[in-house]
Amino acid sequence: MAIRMFDCIQNKKLGHELSLEEIEYIIQGYLDGTIPDYQVSSLLMAICFSGMTNEETKGLTYTMAFSGDSVDLSEFGELTCDKHSTGGVGDKTSLIVGPVVSALGGKLAKMSGRGLGHTGGTIDKLESIPNYKTTLPRDEFIKQTRKIGISLISQSGNICPADKKLYALRDVTATVDSIPLIVSSIMSKKIAAGSKNIVLDVKVGSGAFMKTYDDALELAREMVKIGKICERNVSAVISDMNTPLGKNIGNSLEVIEAVDVLKGNIDNDLGKVSVVLAAELVRMFKKISMDDAIKEVLKVILNGKAFEKMQEWVAAQGGDINVLLDTSKFDEAKYRKDLIAEDDGYIASMNSEIIGNTSVMLGAGRAKLGDKIDYSAGIVLHKKTGDKVKTGDILCSFYTNNDEMLEPASDKYMTSLKFSNTKPSKEKLIQAIVR
Amino acid sequence: MAIRMFDCIQNKKLGHELSLEEIEYIIQGYLDGTIPDYQVSSLLMAICFSGMTNEETKGLTYTMAFSGDSVDLSEFGELTCDKHSTGGVGDKTSLIVGPVVSALGGKLAKMSGRGLGHTGGTIDKLESIPNYKTTLPRDEFIKQTRKIGISLISQSGNICPADKKLYALRDVTATVDSIPLIVSSIMSKKIAAGSKNIVLDVKVGSGAFMKTYDDALELAREMVKIGKICERNVSAVISDMNTPLGKNIGNSLEVIEAVDVLKGNIDNDLGKVSVVLAAELVRMFKKISMDDAIKEVLKVILNGKAFEKMQEWVAAQGGDINVLLDTSKFDEAKYRKDLIAEDDGYIASMNSEIIGNTSVMLGAGRAKLGDKIDYSAGIVLHKKTGDKVKTGDILCSFYTNNDEMLEPASDKYMTSLKFSNTKPSKEKLIQAIVR
Repeated sequence: MAIRMFDCIQNKKLGHELSLEEIEYIIQGYLDGTIPDYQVSSLLMAICFSGMTNEETKGLTYTMAFSGDSVDLSEFGELTCDKHSTGGVGDKTSLIVGPVVSALGGKLAKMSGRGLGHTGGTIDKLESIPNYKTTLPRDEFIKQTRKIGISLISQSGNICPADKKLYALRDVTATVDSIPLIVSSIMSKKIAAGSKNIVLDVKVGSGAFMKTYDDALELAREMVKIGKICERNVSAVISDMNTPLGKNIGNSLEVIEAVDVLKGNIDNDLGKVSVVLAAELVRMFKKISMDDAIKEVLKVILNGKAFEKMQEWVAAQGGDINVLLDTSKFDEAKYRKDLIAEDDGYIASMNSEIIGNTSVMLGAGRAKLGDKIDYSAGIVLHKKTGDKVKTGDILCSFYTNNDEMLEPASDKYMTSLKFSNTKPSKEKLIQAIVR
Repeated sequence: MAIRMFDCIQNKKLGHELSLEEIEYIIQGYLDGTIPDYQVSSLLMAICFSGMTNEETKGLTYTMAFSGDSVDLSEFGELTCDKHSTGGVGDKTSLIVGPVVSALGGKLAKMSGRGLGHTGGTIDKLESIPNYKTTLPRDEFIKQTRKIGISLISQSGNICPADKKLYALRDVTATVDSIPLIVSSIMSKKIAAGSKNIVLDVKVGSGAFMKTYDDALELAREMVKIGKICERNVSAVISDMNTPLGKNIGNSLEVIEAVDVLKGNIDNDLGKVSVVLAAELVRMFKKISMDDAIKEVLKVILNGKAFEKMQEWVAAQGGDINVLLDTSKFDEAKYRKDLIAEDDGYIASMNSEIIGNTSVMLGAGRAKLGDKIDYSAGIVLHKKTGDKVKTGDILCSFYTNNDEMLEPASDKYMTSLKFSNTKPSKEKLIQAIVR
């Protein structure tokens, strides 16, 4: 019997499983316009309530992965590595993990996104490096990977058009927060991107999409499960995003901090998370233990090989490496403002999402698609959760070229902080690794 | 803060209550096109899962009721009566209840619908009467009601446009079967139609929208509750639709059977249901007991006043009353086929929906909107559930002008019947009255 969209919706509403044929019919029909938005959105809402089985999520993942172009990395065998973050504030780990992994022989032909809302995007950060080319023809992208082990470009071509169309619809129909829909959206892009080894950085806390540990764990487990069903090596690192990662938020500011870690300054939250993420990939493609992988990662950071790899990579994509060698050469923002503590105490908590939005106000991000970015704008955090604060201490510094926003951004930032008189407990930085 | 559709969807998904302002915003925005179908359909699906509170259902009912024109029947005070059936097979009770109620002084200015799928529509049935006008200018509609107590026309004007648009969307997004959506759809039309006293005929069984008694009872209770909140006198009669009502299915065939009841032949299922429905209305507008109301109803049927009222009404709307006085004057279908029993036994059950669809095959109804109707086509049931059948007995007779359908309709009809060797138990005809 012919498949009808109405029956698919009805069956999902009743909690029944959609067959692979039905899923393919839905995705194909939605892409070619024969199934209208309004039927798809009602199906999406039914999925939010009824969920999906592993079989369905796998089917949706594969169907979306092959709805457009996919990247052929087969020449690199088992060495290909990819990383995905569920999105955080101050999260510049890709800028560190990429060079580390390729310095150790991994192949990282990666496509990244731009920032929207309170979370930044790797491509915007890279664009703060003068002349860095975020687009490359497909053959150059592969050639560079072959030659130096890493290329990092903006999402291009017709990758997962079904996911793109579905995501846009979910975004306006309150159907984003469904685990199987999130999993299939993320994993379809990773499958299409062609890498064998995938590390997922699942953020949890106030600045993350997943606000609680249990939700993050569920998402991590589902992604790893579906990734394995799709024959990838996958692990997920659940890391804290109640506090922004590192000290710098904003595009060139984040490149500067990443460079600092690659120069060996690793004894901080950013360094720790980056080492674990990189080591997960190294463990997979070298088929070694995690302990050994961590040793390898630390070695290439401390002996400078990873930072050399970053220079090689940025230069290969046309970027000016002088700003990496001497980060004071980055354009500086016209205005700086320090926020001063008015009382003694401790920072009990920070709301990362509010801090991310504050940096958007300063010009570091986009409130909506298409907004211009001020690459030098952002925030440097001098005091973070758990830190002792004395009256007169600098809490943070704002950088911007738009001084009109300094005042409202200050007010916004202060709403993100909670103070206490006693030393607060801090969330564990790395909360779990799901393999 | 400005209301946003996204938040309304999200809140309903989380099970929160929508405010009246939000409901008005949604309905207004959907009608004027500022809120797209795809957002509304995801909200509808969320309502299917999360339900609605009484306050929300009342708000939606009122908002839809006043989204277009409404009928002003205030000059008739408390005498105005309306009836709604949730749709059955062979259900011609409106043709009986209308004349009975108006013969007793009730005012029935009623708008009815056309049939679609396995259920027929009162307007189609009336159109089988030569020259019966199913549309009247609004002032004539009221004038006729003033003069003779009854007018029955096709839904016209801009009554509940919001419900019309929403219903069309629900129909293609598998969001029809939500009690609050059904209740608000039905009750908004009843509120807009302006009558004080409303009897609801809630069908239950294989031919009905509600397949189980519990579902029918829930729907009945909700409709009565919302009707009362909206300051109407409302009662709901739950009646069996496992078996078609009466013996005739098809347009002129059903008029003929209704006339038969109005001529005093009331000792049958159709007569019984019609008497109860009419008595419910009489009880309300005369403010008398149900026992007294039934006596009044029986009186005007048995003394011929109700049938006289039917003639008066049909004549007032231009119809040829000769076919009522002598129903053999109705156009006859060219072809008749009797279905013959091939075994002895009892009819254990009939599937009314299949029988309704069989009559559509013969030409009596519409498979889709806009299909032409053959007014003389249909089925006369000679054996119904519980009846003893002997080999060679006529089970039913088909009437049609399209002899090509006789064979496939026979096959279809036979799938609706189950036979047994022992006398089966029958569903109670009137299962409950909810007031």
